[in-house]
Amino acid sequence: MGRTSDVRQKILDAARPLIEGRGYTALGVAEICKAAGVPKGSFYYFFESKEALALAVVDEHWAAQQRDWARALGGDGEPLQRLRRLFEETEAGRLAAQQGCGTVSGCLFGNLTLELSNQAEAVRGRLQEIFDAQVDMVEAVVAEARDRGEITATDTREAAQAVVAQLEGQMMFAKLYNSTGRLSPLWDNCRALLGATGSH
Amino acid sequence: MGRTSDVRQKILDAARPLIEGRGYTALGVAEICKAAGVPKGSFYYFFESKEALALAVVDEHWAAQQRDWARALGGDGEPLQRLRRLFEETEAGRLAAQQGCGTVSGCLFGNLTLELSNQAEAVRGRLQEIFDAQVDMVEAVVAEARDRGEITATDTREAAQAVVAQLEGQMMFAKLYNSTGRLSPLWDNCRALLGATGSH
Repeated sequence: MGRTSDVRQKILDAARPLIEGRGYTALGVAEICKAAGVPKGSFYYFFESKEALALAVVDEHWAAQQRDWARALGGDGEPLQRLRRLFEETEAGRLAAQQGCGTVSGCLFGNLTLELSNQAEAVRGRLQEIFDAQVDMVEAVVAEARDRGEITATDTREAAQAVVAQLEGQMMFAKLYNSTGRLSPLWDNCRALLGATGSH
Repeated sequence: MGRTSDVRQKILDAARPLIEGRGYTALGVAEICKAAGVPKGSFYYFFESKEALALAVVDEHWAAQQRDWARALGGDGEPLQRLRRLFEETEAGRLAAQQGCGTVSGCLFGNLTLELSNQAEAVRGRLQEIFDAQVDMVEAVVAEARDRGEITATDTREAAQAVVAQLEGQMMFAKLYNSTGRLSPLWDNCRALLGATGSH
Protein backbone atom coordinates (compact mmCIF):
# COMPACT_ATOMS: atom_id res chain seq x y z
CA MET A 1 0.00 0.00 0.00
CA GLY A 2 2.97 2.29 0.59
CA ARG A 3 3.74 2.38 -3.09
CA THR A 4 0.09 2.72 -4.08
CA SER A 5 -0.55 5.85 -2.04
CA ASP A 6 2.79 7.16 -3.28
CA VAL A 7 1.55 7.07 -6.88
CA ARG A 8 -1.67 8.84 -5.95
CA GLN A 9 0.29 11.53 -4.15
CA LYS A 10 2.67 11.93 -7.10
CA ILE A 11 -0.32 12.56 -9.37
CA LEU A 12 -1.75 15.12 -6.92
CA ASP A 13 1.61 16.85 -6.49
CA ALA A 14 2.08 17.13 -10.25
CA ALA A 15 -1.47 18.25 -10.94
CA ARG A 16 -1.67 21.22 -8.58
CA PRO A 17 1.02 23.44 -10.16
CA LEU A 18 -0.22 22.46 -13.63
CA ILE A 19 -3.79 23.47 -12.78
CA GLU A 20 -2.55 26.65 -11.10
CA GLY A 21 -0.44 27.54 -14.10
CA ARG A 22 -2.65 26.61 -17.03
CA GLY A 23 -6.09 25.90 -15.66
CA TYR A 24 -8.11 22.72 -15.65
CA THR A 25 -9.46 22.54 -19.18
CA ALA A 26 -6.10 22.86 -20.89
CA LEU A 27 -4.68 19.82 -19.12
CA GLY A 28 -4.87 16.24 -20.24
CA VAL A 29 -4.54 13.13 -18.12
CA ALA A 30 -1.53 11.98 -20.15
CA GLU A 31 0.30 15.22 -19.45
CA ILE A 32 -0.41 15.02 -15.73
CA CYS A 33 0.87 11.44 -15.57
CA LYS A 34 3.97 12.35 -17.52
CA ALA A 35 4.72 15.22 -15.12
CA ALA A 36 4.09 12.88 -12.19
CA GLY A 37 6.38 10.22 -13.64
CA VAL A 38 3.71 7.53 -13.38
CA PRO A 39 2.24 5.25 -16.07
CA LYS A 40 -0.84 6.72 -17.70
CA GLY A 41 -2.76 3.53 -16.99
CA SER A 42 -2.47 4.12 -13.26
CA PHE A 43 -4.50 7.35 -13.30
CA TYR A 44 -7.94 5.79 -13.41
CA TYR A 45 -7.00 3.38 -10.67
CA PHE A 46 -6.84 6.34 -8.29
CA PHE A 47 -9.22 8.86 -9.87
CA GLU A 48 -12.52 8.21 -11.53
CA SER A 49 -12.09 11.18 -13.84
CA LYS A 50 -10.14 14.37 -14.36
CA GLU A 51 -12.86 16.16 -12.40
CA ALA A 52 -12.34 13.79 -9.47
CA LEU A 53 -8.65 14.68 -9.55
CA ALA A 54 -9.51 18.39 -9.58
CA LEU A 55 -11.69 17.91 -6.50
CA ALA A 56 -8.88 16.03 -4.74
CA VAL A 57 -6.42 18.83 -5.60
CA VAL A 58 -8.88 21.40 -4.28
CA ASP A 59 -9.45 19.42 -1.06
CA GLU A 60 -5.75 18.96 -0.40
CA HIS A 61 -5.02 22.64 -1.09
CA TRP A 62 -7.82 23.77 1.18
CA ALA A 63 -6.72 21.44 4.00
CA ALA A 64 -3.31 23.13 3.96
CA GLN A 65 -4.68 26.65 3.60
CA GLN A 66 -7.26 26.09 6.32
CA ARG A 67 -4.45 25.19 8.73
CA ASP A 68 -2.58 28.37 7.76
CA TRP A 69 -5.68 30.52 8.18
CA ALA A 70 -6.55 28.92 11.51
CA ARG A 71 -3.02 29.54 12.78
CA ALA A 72 -2.99 33.19 11.65
CA LEU A 73 -6.54 34.00 12.80
CA GLY A 74 -6.63 31.90 15.94
CA GLY A 75 -3.31 32.77 17.55
CA ASP A 76 -2.47 35.30 20.22
CA GLY A 77 -3.17 38.97 19.86
CA GLU A 78 -6.11 41.27 19.31
CA PRO A 79 -8.60 40.24 16.61
CA LEU A 80 -7.64 42.91 14.08
CA GLN A 81 -3.95 42.12 14.54
CA ARG A 82 -4.68 38.48 13.72
CA LEU A 83 -6.63 39.48 10.62
CA ARG A 84 -3.74 41.69 9.57
CA ARG A 85 -1.38 38.73 10.05
CA LEU A 86 -3.48 36.70 7.59
CA PHE A 87 -3.01 39.31 4.86
CA GLU A 88 0.69 39.76 5.58
CA GLU A 89 1.27 36.01 5.45
CA THR A 90 -0.77 35.73 2.26
CA GLU A 91 1.32 38.42 0.57
CA ALA A 92 4.58 36.90 1.83
CA GLY A 93 3.51 33.45 0.60
CA ARG A 94 2.71 34.75 -2.89
CA LEU A 95 6.00 36.63 -3.04
CA ALA A 96 7.94 33.49 -2.11
CA ALA A 97 6.05 31.49 -4.75
CA GLN A 98 6.67 34.19 -7.36
CA GLN A 99 10.39 34.18 -6.59
CA GLY A 100 10.34 30.41 -7.08
CA CYS A 101 8.52 30.21 -10.41
CA GLY A 102 8.58 33.75 -11.81
CA THR A 103 4.84 34.26 -11.95
CA VAL A 104 1.97 35.06 -9.60
CA SER A 105 -0.47 32.21 -10.11
CA GLY A 106 -3.36 33.78 -8.23
CA CYS A 107 -5.75 31.88 -6.01
CA LEU A 108 -6.42 28.28 -7.07
CA PHE A 109 -9.99 28.51 -5.81
CA GLY A 110 -10.65 31.82 -7.55
CA ASN A 111 -9.13 30.53 -10.77
CA LEU A 112 -11.33 27.43 -10.76
CA THR A 113 -14.40 29.47 -9.79
CA LEU A 114 -14.12 31.59 -12.91
CA GLU A 115 -13.05 28.73 -15.17
CA LEU A 116 -15.34 25.96 -14.03
CA SER A 117 -18.15 26.91 -11.69
CA ASN A 118 -20.75 27.16 -14.46
CA GLN A 119 -19.69 23.84 -15.99
CA ALA A 120 -19.03 21.40 -13.18
CA GLU A 121 -21.59 21.37 -10.41
CA ALA A 122 -19.47 19.18 -8.13
CA VAL A 123 -16.59 21.67 -8.37
CA ARG A 124 -18.98 24.59 -7.83
CA GLY A 125 -20.37 22.94 -4.70
CA ARG A 126 -16.93 22.29 -3.26
CA LEU A 127 -15.73 25.83 -3.98
CA GLN A 128 -18.87 27.26 -2.38
CA GLU A 129 -18.12 25.24 0.77
CA ILE A 130 -14.54 26.50 0.82
CA PHE A 131 -15.44 30.17 0.38
CA ASP A 132 -18.23 29.78 2.96
CA ALA A 133 -15.63 28.40 5.37
CA GLN A 134 -13.25 31.28 4.62
CA VAL A 135 -16.02 33.78 5.30
CA ASP A 136 -16.88 31.92 8.54
CA MET A 137 -13.29 32.18 9.72
CA VAL A 138 -13.03 35.89 8.90
CA GLU A 139 -16.46 36.58 10.37
CA ALA A 140 -15.50 35.07 13.73
CA VAL A 141 -12.62 37.54 14.03
CA VAL A 142 -14.75 40.42 12.76
CA ALA A 143 -17.42 39.63 15.39
CA GLU A 144 -14.75 39.68 18.11
CA ALA A 145 -13.56 43.08 16.91
CA ARG A 146 -17.13 44.37 16.82
CA ASP A 147 -17.79 43.15 20.38
CA ARG A 148 -14.68 45.03 21.49
CA GLY A 149 -15.96 48.18 19.82
CA GLU A 150 -13.04 48.29 17.39
CA ILE A 151 -15.05 48.48 14.16
CA THR A 152 -18.25 50.20 13.06
CA ALA A 153 -19.50 47.43 10.74
CA THR A 154 -22.56 45.78 12.25
CA ASP A 155 -23.42 43.10 9.67
CA THR A 156 -20.45 40.84 10.32
CA ARG A 157 -21.44 38.34 7.59
CA GLU A 158 -21.57 40.97 4.89
CA ALA A 159 -18.36 42.58 6.16
CA ALA A 160 -16.54 39.23 6.06
CA GLN A 161 -17.84 38.56 2.54
CA ALA A 162 -16.56 41.97 1.43
CA VAL A 163 -13.14 41.25 2.94
CA VAL A 164 -12.85 37.88 1.17
CA ALA A 165 -14.11 39.45 -2.08
CA GLN A 166 -11.47 42.18 -1.80
CA LEU A 167 -8.82 39.51 -1.27
CA GLU A 168 -9.95 37.61 -4.39
CA GLY A 169 -10.17 40.80 -6.46
CA GLN A 170 -6.69 41.99 -5.50
CA MET A 171 -5.35 38.47 -6.00
CA MET A 172 -6.76 38.62 -9.54
CA PHE A 173 -4.86 41.84 -10.20
CA ALA A 174 -1.68 40.44 -8.61
CA LYS A 175 -1.89 37.69 -11.23
CA LEU A 176 -2.81 39.99 -14.13
CA TYR A 177 0.02 42.46 -13.41
CA ASN A 178 2.31 39.68 -12.11
CA SER A 179 2.92 41.78 -9.03
CA THR A 180 2.45 40.81 -5.42
CA GLY A 181 2.61 44.54 -4.64
CA ARG A 182 -1.06 44.55 -5.59
CA LEU A 183 -1.68 42.74 -2.30
CA SER A 184 -0.03 45.43 -0.15
CA PRO A 185 -3.16 47.62 0.22
CA LEU A 186 -5.18 44.64 1.49
CA TRP A 187 -4.92 45.57 5.13
CA ASP A 188 -5.86 49.23 4.65
CA ASN A 189 -8.76 48.14 2.41
CA CYS A 190 -9.88 45.65 5.04
CA ARG A 191 -9.75 48.30 7.77
CA ALA A 192 -11.87 50.59 5.60
CA LEU A 193 -14.41 47.85 4.81
CA LEU A 194 -14.80 47.07 8.51
CA GLY A 195 -14.84 50.69 9.62
CA ALA A 196 -11.93 50.09 11.99
CA THR A 197 -11.82 52.87 14.55
CA GLY A 198 -8.37 52.43 16.14
CA SER A 199 -4.90 52.22 14.64
CA HIS A 200 -4.34 48.47 14.64
CA MET B 1 -18.10 43.69 -48.48
CA GLY B 2 -21.48 43.77 -46.73
CA ARG B 3 -21.62 40.03 -46.59
CA THR B 4 -17.95 39.71 -45.58
CA SER B 5 -18.25 41.87 -42.50
CA ASP B 6 -21.50 40.08 -41.73
CA VAL B 7 -19.66 36.76 -41.43
CA ARG B 8 -17.00 38.27 -39.18
CA GLN B 9 -19.69 39.75 -36.95
CA LYS B 10 -21.55 36.44 -36.81
CA ILE B 11 -18.39 34.74 -35.56
CA LEU B 12 -17.88 37.45 -32.94
CA ASP B 13 -21.51 37.31 -31.83
CA ALA B 14 -21.37 33.52 -31.45
CA ALA B 15 -18.00 33.50 -29.71
CA ARG B 16 -18.75 35.90 -26.87
CA PRO B 17 -21.47 33.91 -25.07
CA LEU B 18 -19.50 30.69 -25.64
CA ILE B 19 -16.36 32.20 -24.07
CA GLU B 20 -18.42 33.68 -21.24
CA GLY B 21 -20.11 30.36 -20.59
CA ARG B 22 -17.30 27.85 -20.97
CA GLY B 23 -14.07 29.78 -21.13
CA TYR B 24 -11.55 30.13 -23.92
CA THR B 25 -9.59 26.90 -23.71
CA ALA B 26 -12.61 24.60 -23.88
CA LEU B 27 -13.74 26.06 -27.20
CA GLY B 28 -12.76 24.92 -30.66
CA VAL B 29 -12.91 26.90 -33.87
CA ALA B 30 -15.26 24.32 -35.41
CA GLU B 31 -17.74 24.75 -32.56
CA ILE B 32 -17.65 28.53 -32.83
CA CYS B 33 -18.28 28.40 -36.58
CA LYS B 34 -21.13 25.94 -36.10
CA ALA B 35 -22.75 28.22 -33.54
CA ALA B 36 -22.24 31.18 -35.87
CA GLY B 37 -23.72 29.27 -38.80
CA VAL B 38 -20.72 29.97 -41.02
CA PRO B 39 -18.42 27.55 -42.88
CA LYS B 40 -15.41 26.53 -40.81
CA GLY B 41 -13.11 27.50 -43.65
CA SER B 42 -14.15 31.12 -43.31
CA PHE B 43 -12.73 31.51 -39.79
CA TYR B 44 -9.11 32.00 -40.73
CA TYR B 45 -10.06 34.49 -43.41
CA PHE B 46 -11.14 36.85 -40.62
CA PHE B 47 -9.04 35.77 -37.65
CA GLU B 48 -5.42 34.70 -37.65
CA SER B 49 -5.96 32.42 -34.67
CA LYS B 50 -8.35 31.61 -31.86
CA GLU B 51 -6.35 34.04 -29.73
CA ALA B 52 -6.94 36.80 -32.29
CA LEU B 53 -10.66 36.07 -32.05
CA ALA B 54 -10.48 36.28 -28.24
CA LEU B 55 -8.81 39.67 -28.51
CA ALA B 56 -11.50 40.88 -30.92
CA VAL B 57 -14.23 39.64 -28.55
CA VAL B 58 -12.53 41.44 -25.66
CA ASP B 59 -12.19 44.66 -27.67
CA GLU B 60 -15.80 44.64 -28.78
CA HIS B 61 -17.05 43.90 -25.26
CA TRP B 62 -14.91 46.66 -23.78
CA ALA B 63 -16.05 49.18 -26.39
CA ALA B 64 -19.65 48.58 -25.32
CA GLN B 65 -18.88 48.52 -21.60
CA GLN B 66 -16.76 51.66 -21.84
CA ARG B 67 -19.73 53.50 -23.34
CA ASP B 68 -21.94 52.27 -20.46
CA TRP B 69 -19.39 53.27 -17.85
CA ALA B 70 -18.85 56.67 -19.45
CA ARG B 71 -22.59 57.32 -19.50
CA ALA B 72 -23.05 56.26 -15.86
CA LEU B 73 -19.97 58.03 -14.52
CA GLY B 74 -20.04 61.10 -16.73
CA GLY B 75 -23.68 62.11 -16.51
CA ASP B 76 -25.42 64.63 -14.30
CA GLY B 77 -25.31 64.47 -10.55
CA GLU B 78 -22.78 64.51 -7.75
CA PRO B 79 -19.73 62.28 -8.21
CA LEU B 80 -20.70 59.65 -5.64
CA GLN B 81 -24.21 59.46 -7.07
CA ARG B 82 -22.70 58.71 -10.47
CA LEU B 83 -20.47 56.00 -9.01
CA ARG B 84 -23.48 54.50 -7.29
CA ARG B 85 -25.33 54.49 -10.61
CA LEU B 86 -22.52 52.43 -12.12
CA PHE B 87 -22.96 49.70 -9.51
CA GLU B 88 -26.74 49.75 -9.74
CA GLU B 89 -26.62 49.47 -13.52
CA THR B 90 -24.05 46.67 -13.29
CA GLU B 91 -26.26 44.69 -10.92
CA ALA B 92 -29.36 45.32 -13.04
CA GLY B 93 -27.51 44.25 -16.18
CA ARG B 94 -26.36 40.98 -14.60
CA LEU B 95 -29.85 40.28 -13.31
CA ALA B 96 -31.33 40.78 -16.77
CA ALA B 97 -28.70 38.48 -18.28
CA GLN B 98 -29.33 35.84 -15.62
CA GLN B 99 -33.05 35.95 -16.29
CA GLY B 100 -32.26 35.39 -19.96
CA CYS B 101 -29.87 32.44 -19.68
CA GLY B 102 -30.33 31.14 -16.14
CA THR B 103 -26.77 31.66 -14.98
CA VAL B 104 -24.55 34.51 -13.84
CA SER B 105 -21.59 34.38 -16.19
CA GLY B 106 -19.39 36.78 -14.23
CA CYS B 107 -17.12 39.35 -15.82
CA LEU B 108 -15.66 38.36 -19.18
CA PHE B 109 -12.44 40.25 -18.40
CA GLY B 110 -12.09 38.71 -14.94
CA ASN B 111 -12.79 35.23 -16.31
CA LEU B 112 -10.11 35.60 -18.99
CA THR B 113 -7.67 37.12 -16.50
CA LEU B 114 -7.78 34.05 -14.31
CA GLU B 115 -7.93 31.59 -17.19
CA LEU B 116 -5.41 33.06 -19.56
CA SER B 117 -3.23 35.86 -18.27
CA ASN B 118 -0.28 33.61 -17.44
CA GLN B 119 -0.47 31.85 -20.81
CA ALA B 120 -1.16 34.45 -23.46
CA GLU B 121 0.84 37.65 -23.21
CA ALA B 122 -1.23 39.47 -25.83
CA VAL B 123 -4.40 38.77 -23.87
CA ARG B 124 -2.70 39.77 -20.62
CA GLY B 125 -1.59 43.08 -22.15
CA ARG B 126 -5.07 43.86 -23.46
CA LEU B 127 -6.74 43.02 -20.15
CA GLN B 128 -4.22 45.17 -18.28
CA GLU B 129 -5.13 48.10 -20.55
CA ILE B 130 -8.83 47.54 -19.94
CA PHE B 131 -8.54 47.34 -16.16
CA ASP B 132 -6.20 50.36 -16.17
CA ALA B 133 -8.89 52.24 -18.10
CA GLN B 134 -11.59 51.13 -15.64
CA VAL B 135 -9.46 52.35 -12.74
CA ASP B 136 -8.85 55.65 -14.58
CA MET B 137 -12.59 56.18 -15.00
CA VAL B 138 -13.35 55.39 -11.36
CA GLU B 139 -10.39 57.46 -10.16
CA ALA B 140 -11.64 60.57 -11.98
CA VAL B 141 -14.92 60.41 -10.06
CA VAL B 142 -13.14 59.59 -6.78
CA ALA B 143 -10.88 62.62 -7.24
CA GLU B 144 -13.94 64.83 -7.80
CA ALA B 145 -15.49 63.50 -4.58
CA ARG B 146 -12.23 64.08 -2.70
CA ASP B 147 -12.00 67.66 -3.98
CA ARG B 148 -15.54 68.24 -2.70
CA GLY B 149 -14.55 66.87 0.71
CA GLU B 150 -17.00 63.97 0.42
CA ILE B 151 -14.52 61.17 1.11
CA THR B 152 -11.53 60.69 3.41
CA ALA B 153 -9.44 58.56 1.01
CA THR B 154 -6.44 60.57 -0.16
CA ASP B 155 -4.69 58.14 -2.52
CA THR B 156 -7.28 58.23 -5.27
CA ARG B 157 -5.43 55.66 -7.43
CA GLU B 158 -5.28 53.07 -4.70
CA ALA B 159 -8.88 53.78 -3.73
CA ALA B 160 -10.04 53.30 -7.32
CA GLN B 161 -8.08 50.04 -7.59
CA ALA B 162 -9.72 48.79 -4.40
CA VAL B 163 -13.16 49.67 -5.77
CA VAL B 164 -12.55 47.80 -9.04
CA ALA B 165 -11.05 44.85 -7.12
CA GLN B 166 -14.13 44.72 -4.91
CA LEU B 167 -16.31 44.72 -8.01
CA GLU B 168 -14.36 41.81 -9.53
CA GLY B 169 -14.34 39.88 -6.25
CA GLN B 170 -18.09 40.23 -5.72
CA MET B 171 -18.69 39.41 -9.39
CA MET B 172 -16.73 36.18 -8.82
CA PHE B 173 -19.04 35.27 -5.95
CA ALA B 174 -22.13 36.23 -7.94
CA LYS B 175 -21.00 33.66 -10.50
CA LEU B 176 -20.03 31.00 -7.94
CA TYR B 177 -23.32 31.25 -6.03
CA ASN B 178 -25.27 32.07 -9.21
CA SER B 179 -26.77 35.03 -7.39
CA THR B 180 -26.76 38.65 -8.47
CA GLY B 181 -27.72 39.45 -4.86
CA ARG B 182 -23.99 39.18 -4.18
CA LEU B 183 -23.64 42.49 -6.01
CA SER B 184 -26.09 44.36 -3.75
CA PRO B 185 -23.51 45.32 -1.09
CA LEU B 186 -21.24 46.87 -3.73
CA TRP B 187 -22.28 50.43 -3.04
CA ASP B 188 -21.92 50.19 0.74
CA ASN B 189 -18.54 48.49 0.27
CA CYS B 190 -17.47 51.22 -2.10
CA ARG B 191 -18.51 53.94 0.34
CA ALA B 192 -16.51 52.21 3.08
CA LEU B 193 -13.43 51.84 0.85
CA LEU B 194 -13.55 55.55 -0.04
CA GLY B 195 -14.33 56.69 3.47
CA ALA B 196 -17.46 58.50 2.26
CA THR B 197 -18.51 61.03 4.85
CA GLY B 198 -22.04 61.98 3.78
CA SER B 199 -25.13 59.91 3.05
CA HIS B 200 -24.97 59.74 -0.74
